[in-house]
Amino acid sequence: MTAKSQTHWSGEPAELLRAGEGFRLADVDPDATPGYEGGKKNGRDDLAAGADQLDDLQERLFAQSRVVDGTPSVLLVLQAMDSAGKGGIVRHVVGSVDPQGVSLAAFKKPTSEELAHDFLWRIEKRVPEPGYIGVFDRSHYEDVLIGRVRQLAPADEIERRYGAIVDFEKRLTDAGTRIVKVMLHISPDEQKERLMERLDRPDKNWKYNPGDVDERKLWPAYMDAYQTVFERTSTPNAPWYVIPANAKWYARIAVQALLLEALEDIDPRWPAADFDVAAEKQRLAAT
Amino acid sequence: MTAKSQTHWSGEPAELLRAGEGFRLADVDPDATPGYEGGKKNGRDDLAAGADQLDDLQERLFAQSRVVDGTPSVLLVLQAMDSAGKGGIVRHVVGSVDPQGVSLAAFKKPTSEELAHDFLWRIEKRVPEPGYIGVFDRSHYEDVLIGRVRQLAPADEIERRYGAIVDFEKRLTDAGTRIVKVMLHISPDEQKERLMERLDRPDKNWKYNPGDVDERKLWPAYMDAYQTVFERTSTPNAPWYVIPANAKWYARIAVQALLLEALEDIDPRWPAADFDVAAEKQRLAAT
Repeated sequence: MTAKSQTHWSGEPAELLRAGEGFRLADVDPDATPGYEGGKKNGRDDLAAGADQLDDLQERLFAQSRVVDGTPSVLLVLQAMDSAGKGGIVRHVVGSVDPQGVSLAAFKKPTSEELAHDFLWRIEKRVPEPGYIGVFDRSHYEDVLIGRVRQLAPADEIERRYGAIVDFEKRLTDAGTRIVKVMLHISPDEQKERLMERLDRPDKNWKYNPGDVDERKLWPAYMDAYQTVFERTSTPNAPWYVIPANAKWYARIAVQALLLEALEDIDPRWPAADFDVAAEKQRLAAT
Repeated sequence: MTAKSQTHWSGEPAELLRAGEGFRLADVDPDATPGYEGGKKNGRDDLAAGADQLDDLQERLFAQSRVVDGTPSVLLVLQAMDSAGKGGIVRHVVGSVDPQGVSLAAFKKPTSEELAHDFLWRIEKRVPEPGYIGVFDRSHYEDVLIGRVRQLAPADEIERRYGAIVDFEKRLTDAGTRIVKVMLHISPDEQKERLMERLDRPDKNWKYNPGDVDERKLWPAYMDAYQTVFERTSTPNAPWYVIPANAKWYARIAVQALLLEALEDIDPRWPAADFDVAAEKQRLAAT
């Protein structure tokens, strides 16, 4: 449905963007728009059309979960370097569906309480309930990204985490959660421009953090850490998708297409009433 | 700004809808559209225009809270009889702002753990953080509404709660939270129609609960309980607004206008950078 009704897609985003066997992050061009034949304006139109589809599918999923036990959920995991556009995805893609069916968790620097527990402790608490679209703005992957680059934990602990993540996600998908893991991939030059804009515009200053430049200096180390993440945690049940994100409009329709695909795979239906409709009509009519 | 830029308002919604001294719920006509000169189509246009204002104000509030300690928050409390349109408010009014700045709490029937604590225990945990727009879909008022009508607690405990609520809300507003308490007011006939539609349409069946008819039979008792709520808890710092809601479009622009007023009262500003912008530009340029 996604690729078919969004007529500017010439291929399946899920196929084209998946970090599968032999994937190399260094080969991805952040300026590319894989599988999409249109430009920015087409992208905007397709985003609006996709928003209606997403809205409809989300409502069905939510409805189903109110009546049917074991209804699946969807979990969108967003990772990226600073300014790559995670916020724009939340606002423009996730923001188009009913907030009542969305559970959004933004993971910041862990608190001391969180650090006293295993790294998955705070994550587990925010796993979406059945029928919800959960969104992780940053996630447990921080613990093998900045965690690795900044050596925030011993090497063997970092090493242990890849397996722990795979097991954790397996448990979620076994329980019916569709996990869509997205890395928004921008180029260092694009980041420089975006950070500079945050410095140039007084209404954007609040989005800038001096620490961003420190992380930026470690770009190659971060790319290595991401490459390792893809190799160790892109599984058939919870694959990674790497989305070229220099063009914001492309990143948005691509993430939307992945969400649509996950929901279409669930194929949520309006649930049958779990009460006697005719009897209730009579009861209501009598009031 | 609200009443002025929304040209179809002929009066201030906050003034016209407030449940002040001597307010009587029985005098409110659920079909009325107080202070609004336009019809449904104007309402739709004004809602779209107001959404842009709300979006802008919310972003400024959020930005301010990232830099300035003690930034206020807004708390919208939604109460109503079944099918009065709470969900539509969340979807069409709250849903127009960036989900990253919204904290939505839907209070269902309390769990046994929640019941083992004071009634405000579960509420306290969902109070919005600085800079957020919090939305309570049902709230601590259930404990003096269904709690009173269904005698879920002894009479002296129900009695105690009014004062506890006033104290609790005073503490929140003292700390800078703007509390906007809204009761959506429909007529029994309108409810009957809406519930019947949920029974008639298979894609709406999931929204119907046989218990809705049982509550409906207690309509006068609920209206008494609401009247008492307004008398005991509509304070200058946390007033109640009763919104005629037979016309959904009116209820939506009215709630939006109240939210806009609360945000304009805060008057959030883009915060000044808490770092040396020029120095950061140099640091960034050197990378």
